[in-house]
Amino acid sequence: MKLFTTTSNLIEQMVAWRRDFHQYPETGWTEFRTASIIAHELSILGFQVQVGKEVVSEERMGVPSDDELAVYYENAKSNGGYLEYMEKMVGGYTGVVGTIKGKKTGPTIAFRFDMDALDILENDELTHLPKQFGFRSKYAGKMHACGHDAHSAIGLGLAKVLANNVDQIEGTIKIIFQPAEEGVRGANSMVAAGVVDDVDYFLSMHVGINVPLGTVIAGADGFLATTKIDAKFIGKAAHAGAEPEKGKNALLAAASAILGLHTITQHSDGASRINVGTCISGDGRNIVPAHATLKLETRGENNSVHTYVHEQALSVLEGASKMYGTELFYEIVGEAKTCASSEELVELVGLAAKDIDGVEEVQLRSKFAGGSEDATYMMDQVQRQGGLATYAIFGTTLAAGHHHEKFDIDEAVFPIILNTWLETIERIYEYQRK
Amino acid sequence: MKLFTTTSNLIEQMVAWRRDFHQYPETGWTEFRTASIIAHELSILGFQVQVGKEVVSEERMGVPSDDELAVYYENAKSNGGYLEYMEKMVGGYTGVVGTIKGKKTGPTIAFRFDMDALDILENDELTHLPKQFGFRSKYAGKMHACGHDAHSAIGLGLAKVLANNVDQIEGTIKIIFQPAEEGVRGANSMVAAGVVDDVDYFLSMHVGINVPLGTVIAGADGFLATTKIDAKFIGKAAHAGAEPEKGKNALLAAASAILGLHTITQHSDGASRINVGTCISGDGRNIVPAHATLKLETRGENNSVHTYVHEQALSVLEGASKMYGTELFYEIVGEAKTCASSEELVELVGLAAKDIDGVEEVQLRSKFAGGSEDATYMMDQVQRQGGLATYAIFGTTLAAGHHHEKFDIDEAVFPIILNTWLETIERIYEYQRK
Amino acid sequence: MKLFTTTSNLIEQMVAWRRDFHQYPETGWTEFRTASIIAHELSILGFQVQVGKEVVSEERMGVPSDDELAVYYENAKSNGGYLEYMEKMVGGYTGVVGTIKGKKTGPTIAFRFDMDALDILENDELTHLPKQFGFRSKYAGKMHACGHDAHSAIGLGLAKVLANNVDQIEGTIKIIFQPAEEGVRGANSMVAAGVVDDVDYFLSMHVGINVPLGTVIAGADGFLATTKIDAKFIGKAAHAGAEPEKGKNALLAAASAILGLHTITQHSDGASRINVGTCISGDGRNIVPAHATLKLETRGENNSVHTYVHEQALSVLEGASKMYGTELFYEIVGEAKTCASSEELVELVGLAAKDIDGVEEVQLRSKFAGGSEDATYMMDQVQRQGGLATYAIFGTTLAAGHHHEKFDIDEAVFPIILNTWLETIERIYEYQRK
Amino acid sequence: MKLFTTTSNLIEQMVAWRRDFHQYPETGWTEFRTASIIAHELSILGFQVQVGKEVVSEERMGVPSDDELAVYYENAKSNGGYLEYMEKMVGGYTGVVGTIKGKKTGPTIAFRFDMDALDILENDELTHLPKQFGFRSKYAGKMHACGHDAHSAIGLGLAKVLANNVDQIEGTIKIIFQPAEEGVRGANSMVAAGVVDDVDYFLSMHVGINVPLGTVIAGADGFLATTKIDAKFIGKAAHAGAEPEKGKNALLAAASAILGLHTITQHSDGASRINVGTCISGDGRNIVPAHATLKLETRGENNSVHTYVHEQALSVLEGASKMYGTELFYEIVGEAKTCASSEELVELVGLAAKDIDGVEEVQLRSKFAGGSEDATYMMDQVQRQGGLATYAIFGTTLAAGHHHEKFDIDEAVFPIILNTWLETIERIYEYQRK
Repeated sequence: MKLFTTTSNLIEQMVAWRRDFHQYPETGWTEFRTASIIAHELSILGFQVQVGKEVVSEERMGVPSDDELAVYYENAKSNGGYLEYMEKMVGGYTGVVGTIKGKKTGPTIAFRFDMDALDILENDELTHLPKQFGFRSKYAGKMHACGHDAHSAIGLGLAKVLANNVDQIEGTIKIIFQPAEEGVRGANSMVAAGVVDDVDYFLSMHVGINVPLGTVIAGADGFLATTKIDAKFIGKAAHAGAEPEKGKNALLAAASAILGLHTITQHSDGASRINVGTCISGDGRNIVPAHATLKLETRGENNSVHTYVHEQALSVLEGASKMYGTELFYEIVGEAKTCASSEELVELVGLAAKDIDGVEEVQLRSKFAGGSEDATYMMDQVQRQGGLATYAIFGTTLAAGHHHEKFDIDEAVFPIILNTWLETIERIYEYQRK
Repeated sequence: MKLFTTTSNLIEQMVAWRRDFHQYPETGWTEFRTASIIAHELSILGFQVQVGKEVVSEERMGVPSDDELAVYYENAKSNGGYLEYMEKMVGGYTGVVGTIKGKKTGPTIAFRFDMDALDILENDELTHLPKQFGFRSKYAGKMHACGHDAHSAIGLGLAKVLANNVDQIEGTIKIIFQPAEEGVRGANSMVAAGVVDDVDYFLSMHVGINVPLGTVIAGADGFLATTKIDAKFIGKAAHAGAEPEKGKNALLAAASAILGLHTITQHSDGASRINVGTCISGDGRNIVPAHATLKLETRGENNSVHTYVHEQALSVLEGASKMYGTELFYEIVGEAKTCASSEELVELVGLAAKDIDGVEEVQLRSKFAGGSEDATYMMDQVQRQGGLATYAIFGTTLAAGHHHEKFDIDEAVFPIILNTWLETIERIYEYQRK
Repeated sequence: MKLFTTTSNLIEQMVAWRRDFHQYPETGWTEFRTASIIAHELSILGFQVQVGKEVVSEERMGVPSDDELAVYYENAKSNGGYLEYMEKMVGGYTGVVGTIKGKKTGPTIAFRFDMDALDILENDELTHLPKQFGFRSKYAGKMHACGHDAHSAIGLGLAKVLANNVDQIEGTIKIIFQPAEEGVRGANSMVAAGVVDDVDYFLSMHVGINVPLGTVIAGADGFLATTKIDAKFIGKAAHAGAEPEKGKNALLAAASAILGLHTITQHSDGASRINVGTCISGDGRNIVPAHATLKLETRGENNSVHTYVHEQALSVLEGASKMYGTELFYEIVGEAKTCASSEELVELVGLAAKDIDGVEEVQLRSKFAGGSEDATYMMDQVQRQGGLATYAIFGTTLAAGHHHEKFDIDEAVFPIILNTWLETIERIYEYQRK
Repeated sequence: MKLFTTTSNLIEQMVAWRRDFHQYPETGWTEFRTASIIAHELSILGFQVQVGKEVVSEERMGVPSDDELAVYYENAKSNGGYLEYMEKMVGGYTGVVGTIKGKKTGPTIAFRFDMDALDILENDELTHLPKQFGFRSKYAGKMHACGHDAHSAIGLGLAKVLANNVDQIEGTIKIIFQPAEEGVRGANSMVAAGVVDDVDYFLSMHVGINVPLGTVIAGADGFLATTKIDAKFIGKAAHAGAEPEKGKNALLAAASAILGLHTITQHSDGASRINVGTCISGDGRNIVPAHATLKLETRGENNSVHTYVHEQALSVLEGASKMYGTELFYEIVGEAKTCASSEELVELVGLAAKDIDGVEEVQLRSKFAGGSEDATYMMDQVQRQGGLATYAIFGTTLAAGHHHEKFDIDEAVFPIILNTWLETIERIYEYQRK
């Protein structure tokens, strides 16, 4: 017997939310509109709502410049953001936590959903469903190409059911809406603000990930530990023909670093990765390049491998800078850990998923190959304080791969996710009673 | 006794032209406004005027994209360009040649002036005179920071005097207004169109170049032969965490090339230079970079050294591309030669300059250290057909060095230049008669 | 009940053989003395003996020069090698196969032992047991530092027992003595000569490998596929001060290649390795280096990963050579595959080892971390033709790690190995009868 | 009228000395035999002789190891070296200064000759005259391939004439025999020992240098300032397959350094050079290279250019080492300056040479293109103390270029040199009297 009952038009409502969010994609730390709408809805539903610095610590990685934040803030204001909440988010503190308490005692269960979009220009052809159905991104060069619009909508749908069934809740349920997952920047700051300090069961998730519709993975592992680094070599400009010796060539430093960085990925304890993804350098063909900026990332299958690669990378950057007499400035703009889902919780989610309509296959565990996720910060924190945590994957049909301009999901996965999470709450309550 | 008489307000007029051109700086191949105004003025003065493909061959280097050309064309249209001439310049054929014939027979003398500006954001402080006097660039990010605005104005001033003294002209005088000197792109195409084929005496010049006001250098030498190359490595993107092996890393190819290119400047026959001035690569931190674009230049003190460096550079680019399985595309977007000023003409210019008001020192020859100039193409062509050619430098006080955001010249140099050129014509006529 | 009975002094004899071989260490393809003594002993024992080109194909990797072969041949001649067999080994065809047939029908079982030594100067201190007991290497700079002297002695010991118990043999037993395992050069050529074409059960092994005395691993896996490459860049010398442009700098090509090679070890299908182990370049400080020789190796956890790394490595070498206008010559001087031990045979060896005196622990499977072995060529061939193959490790106390100048084994492992192999034959016969 | 008279068989004697020295070539700091024979001869002639630490300071660059010195010392002992002098040269203090004073007062004139040979295996074909005439090098791998054997013989010839004409000497004449010119190591140490502190006129020279027989260059300029550097990167070995992360890869550091070093030769004040001439790295194909040794040199057309290149080179070495966590050790093993010959002395030598039999052309000045010479240290010191110095070149026919295995000179140049130097002394006396 189901503990929580859903209303007939809830899925429609979730689809509407998702398509609304899809039209106004906001990248990390600029989710003013998305987060304020979520806060507004949670508030209406009777959730206790926390936003801004209450749930996001001041130490954050990879925050856009004040000028950029201001532009995005204005966009949000012009497109339906709720000022009441947005004002608390000034400066990019765009996290939201909704909390609801049952009448019965019980554990604290937290769900985590991410809200941010990507710097991608959405496809504009009619074969792309968001275009065809009129919910293509209204912000040129920004796109929900990873499904976080769906995640946000699911979080709201779950909130609605819980609000309607508050008498069934045992203990407390928190719904965490996280900014800046792309670039793995946001979770760390929410953990630092204490949002999972009281959590006993932590549930996080992703749609898609090349898993077919109908398949649920109860516990994903294999997240790579990672650091995202912005490195800048500052040299000195000079006319390359007339006085080359007056210059300090930042591009030569960068080139040495790029090659050197890519040589450090052999480790006997596990796989590692390094990638210098972008390089921007120089002011003109005939000028000794006075600056070079690299965006790079290191990854490791486990924390020891990752620590090795990360430390080697810093040595390479520093040495390369010294070679050419430049100055090196670098910043860690993102970070994530490796983390394994908790055995007991994986089993509970697996059991929950098994009987849900539309679920054809449940896999208990699977590797999340080659990627990183900052939900791992929250999982790690919950596990350290004795709680259980898992990361589930809900397969769905994708029009194109994640981060592709034609990315689109089949919304038919919405009831599967909603029902699995509701059923999981029930399973947790049973497990508590044992 | 002076052959050519000038009118009292001519210098004022030249200053006005210069300041007008300064406000509407147009970069190489987009000088629609500047060139059409010049054509219009020349026409009024009675010059025979040629523009567009008549004076610029179709084979050109470093032409902007059609989209860019269209934008600049519209700008010119909105800011006083003459459509009558602009229509002949569609596609960026922005050269102008004005020809005036005397009644007496005599040689063909050509003057060459360049018209293009730079991609520099002009300084906006009141200490910067163009700002203070209200003629700062109206186009953000474009600036006449090398004095070609002055060159163009001098060409018009010279035209005006000649038109007023047509009876004194012996033979023919051509005034060549060249586009795209920056990046040494334009001269080659005007030579190919035949504009100097009939020229017996060729006179070209630059203001400034760190020479003090009052000093004239009658013949500059030491231009470095140069090629400007745009090189693009095209690889293949892949998720750097999940499937690095699916990528072809264009940035690694570029980094290898950058280091390799800078190793090839040792030659026993003379100085050489190589500079990779800019590098733009990659689409995102976690994506194997699928493209990397380098803007580079090679230079050599003489043509044999330059040929060596240029050929080595191509080998390095090709080898680096092969190393990482990328495709290499490159384009020569600029080219200049070394060239020496003709002894006899240097002496004539020296004699002419000696007695001009305001001239304190005349140097017959001097090295134009470390730089390149595509007037060398025209000089070389004239010398090959038996004519004489020189490149003069007219010192003036500079507010800041060439290509600096605060670059500005002292217009007090205008009468010195105008009178030196007029006197030079007279000296040539005398020389002819010997 | 034991099928095969051993004589009381056999272990002593094996020790004597091992110490004799230890004193005359012969590196790959130069095992003239070792191989000819083995052939001689096998012949006396009544084995059918094959040597030279009968068991080693002409296509071999990493063969020393004729001059070197001649020197080693003379050394062998002077130190007790048997000319009767050595004459068939001229040119380095130093493999031996001994075959013995039982009266009863049955399968063909093969054992493989390797014979070659290393280019290491053996320690000369009294604390080093081979020195103390008078069997230190008599060849300066050559040393049995990996235990192949023991392997050879074990092969002979096994042969002796089998010869004494020929009536118990069912079918055929072959003992393969392989040259040139170091550098993974020899096995491939013996496979090509057909020595395992008729083999149903293939047993290979190593002593030591950081496994303690008393522990037996029945089936080692995790050998990395590998290629050993000698690459030579040939440029052109020139006086570096007077005419640098006349040179083609082979060291710059090598340096680019070294960095480039080390960038290619990221693959999502498994671990890979690349190492440029040595670089020798140049003739003098003031001469543009005309040659650079690299010894390198690629490895991969599986054949697809290895193929990728190997192919990328060749591209890097070729591209780097092209960059600097050098010529590239390279040679594959060693090669090995990945291979998994056969499940059924692993179990038979495990059962056999379990009850042997001195065996304290039997592990069925273990990874042979990070190393390569060319026995994999034989294993692969036997498995392809439907046979079973395994690679066992017999732990023993080591005085120092493999390839160390103080490497020494505890010979107490000899009876463990001998008895495990004899018992394994018995288990195979039982298995055959099922 | 000639001041100094020579004996009929002196040239024969000089040829004999040269051919003797040619057979026993000794490289820098190991000229025990050559130097002790010279000392012995000078002593017989009545010169005051100084050897060892009297004329070579303890601070020396590029001294061979004690073991090597011992071997060469023994060779010298076995081949006719004079122990009386050799004993004072133990440790490689192989300089000799012979001083002779006239009865009349006058200036101190010094001649400098270098004595060392090269690490080259001399050609062994009959077409090579030293082979044909039986004076080919008796030391395999060592060769007088630069003519210093001739220089030494000329110094002795000059000494003989002066001893025979001691009454004609006005003031003092010193003949300096310098070790270790190759690698520009020796002069600096002799200067430090004060051997030119009292010198008023300094005369140095080279034979050959691609100048034809009969041509004398009175004052060579254009020596490049140079430093010779031995750089060693010490990393940490590790098994490249099993534990690559345990290593510190010295070869990667070296490869980065090699590329980086070659990028630093662009300077607007003059030509520069850098060459990494040799690289030796690594212990085995499958071991992370724990060491890499580079022999390199920097050069500059003038001291400011050279200082720039030298300092950049050290930065590159240090930065590259830091990149890969290795330790860097480097040593300056040779050094020379740029230096210009003194105008007045060039003229005196030019006048002296003009009338010598066999001299067909006298050039006052010429560039010594692309090379370095440590006589510049002595010249510089003499000029600083107010004296005059020059470096002359005496052309002669060469069988092959300097440092070539077939290098050989035409000894017909001997009388030209001897007579030019004797005449130069006379000219100096005249000049003094003015």
